[in-house]
Amino acid sequence: MADYLAQDMRACNQVIIDRMQSPVALIPQLAAHLVAAGGKRLRPLLTLASARMCGYDNQDGKLRHVEIAACVEFIHTATLLHDDVVDESQLRRGLASANAIFGNKASVLVGDFLFARAFQILTADASLDVMAILSAASATLAEGEVMQMTTQNDLSTSVDQYLQVIYGKTAALFAAACESGAVIGEATPEKREALRVYGANLGMAFQLVDDALDYAADQAVLGKEVGDDFREGKVTLPVLAAYEAGSEEDRVFWRRVIEDCEQTPEDLDAALARIAATDAIATTLAKAEDYAAKAREALAIFGDGEIKSLLIETASYSASRAS
Amino acid sequence: MADYLAQDMRACNQVIIDRMQSPVALIPQLAAHLVAAGGKRLRPLLTLASARMCGYDNQDGKLRHVEIAACVEFIHTATLLHDDVVDESQLRRGLASANAIFGNKASVLVGDFLFARAFQILTADASLDVMAILSAASATLAEGEVMQMTTQNDLSTSVDQYLQVIYGKTAALFAAACESGAVIGEATPEKREALRVYGANLGMAFQLVDDALDYAADQAVLGKEVGDDFREGKVTLPVLAAYEAGSEEDRVFWRRVIEDCEQTPEDLDAALARIAATDAIATTLAKAEDYAAKAREALAIFGDGEIKSLLIETASYSASRAS
Repeated sequence: MADYLAQDMRACNQVIIDRMQSPVALIPQLAAHLVAAGGKRLRPLLTLASARMCGYDNQDGKLRHVEIAACVEFIHTATLLHDDVVDESQLRRGLASANAIFGNKASVLVGDFLFARAFQILTADASLDVMAILSAASATLAEGEVMQMTTQNDLSTSVDQYLQVIYGKTAALFAAACESGAVIGEATPEKREALRVYGANLGMAFQLVDDALDYAADQAVLGKEVGDDFREGKVTLPVLAAYEAGSEEDRVFWRRVIEDCEQTPEDLDAALARIAATDAIATTLAKAEDYAAKAREALAIFGDGEIKSLLIETASYSASRAS
Repeated sequence: MADYLAQDMRACNQVIIDRMQSPVALIPQLAAHLVAAGGKRLRPLLTLASARMCGYDNQDGKLRHVEIAACVEFIHTATLLHDDVVDESQLRRGLASANAIFGNKASVLVGDFLFARAFQILTADASLDVMAILSAASATLAEGEVMQMTTQNDLSTSVDQYLQVIYGKTAALFAAACESGAVIGEATPEKREALRVYGANLGMAFQLVDDALDYAADQAVLGKEVGDDFREGKVTLPVLAAYEAGSEEDRVFWRRVIEDCEQTPEDLDAALARIAATDAIATTLAKAEDYAAKAREALAIFGDGEIKSLLIETASYSASRAS
């Protein structure tokens, strides 16, 4: 990574720590639990890289790209906290989830605090364009999560509906992270649109691979528990593909475990075996690769350079991390 | 109420209904449950009245005051939805809570949607001052709710800490609702500050009375279940005053039911009797009346008129509705 980008990331971490402070001690305590867990910080990196690639040089002395990147991470962290409440996830980034330690109540409220704080920072930055992008993405995110909820346990969900869900819950914020950076970098409308398209497609690839990993990951390596989606009855592409390709006996199995939520302790292994017996994972990863290719193509408008290479590698890595 | 203010309120209801729409059907369904319940809409009324009193005449053809008032109600509704998750309230405005019908998950996510939508509307309105006021109030609101959580079940909570909690969870948004209206009405800094102070004190009075009603209200009349706070072990002024004034035997009782959360079905009646045997309710209502008086005094800077009278009556009513 370019030195100045690594420096931007450190500055962003500092802004995150500084701005999650509150006289109400439980707020930084709980927020620190997620921050210290050291997620990938992929979304703020996208904002920083996009701003830099569009020529933002912080000659204004304001580090606007760093502030906006921290907002993007706050919005993401708020959704993680609220998602923990919702999904009763047991593991998040390899540590016990904040919810398991602090309870539903604190997770909801600290998420709300981070979301409000993000909009305080955005207001101080004063770019109406960036605020429009990030408030719209936040609404789309909530819509995607609600839609995911309504497709849960429903095997008649179409692949298109599934793709709409992952656009809302993941790709919209990736797109907004990149587009916000472009705005800060005063990009031309064409470059701004190119970065939005890059982010949206990267986000789709990222979520597809995440959904594949839920039926394939090595828990110790990835810090994600295999079978989370399965236990919650989430209808993701690996399940839809295995259901589609399965025998009548397979379908009876999937209907029982996903639609009726009747699961025995042996059912996860049975599900993994049924998925492995089809090309469900390959189908999912191939679709991820399609989106990653579109993400890379969107960057054609930019001249070659260190950051462009990084963004291209990010797209390739996102689509290949499962294999 | 002045005709134009009643018209503003109808326009605000319409904006609320229009802007809670989403292609994801569950969102307007759940939001409508709260909207149809027809709350008092006190907060948006404060924004509308403040804007009008400061001379906003919507000659810009934009109904900015109505849009901002709808945002205030969205932020409030989001916190109600999140509070339902948290507190397992059984009744809200006389109807079963949204959470009881739709579940934790939907309540969290639809609250998030309304919050994001509020900031979309604020961004379109483009007043950085209003955005600063409402994003700061939203952060304070979350802080107040977290602080309430940490004082729950703790009888060593001081009256000052309790007042900080109710400032955060209630008064901050009342203050922001009024101040936002003043900004829209292009008020002088003095009038803007006067309306902020009015709102803050009104909010304190309102919450004190609400906390008194929890140990005194007629459920059928007020749609609020007596004893909600009691069952949750919330440490409110009536409890603090009764604990302070009580005998050692009273204190043993309060420690068991509030601190240790050991409650039998008979304990609510016992608590009501112990509170009635002290001046706990009178103390709480007297404090509410002090804040209401400060709210009324803050309006001295404004000339007499229909709206000023309405705001003064609102303060008096808020402090007296329990008696």
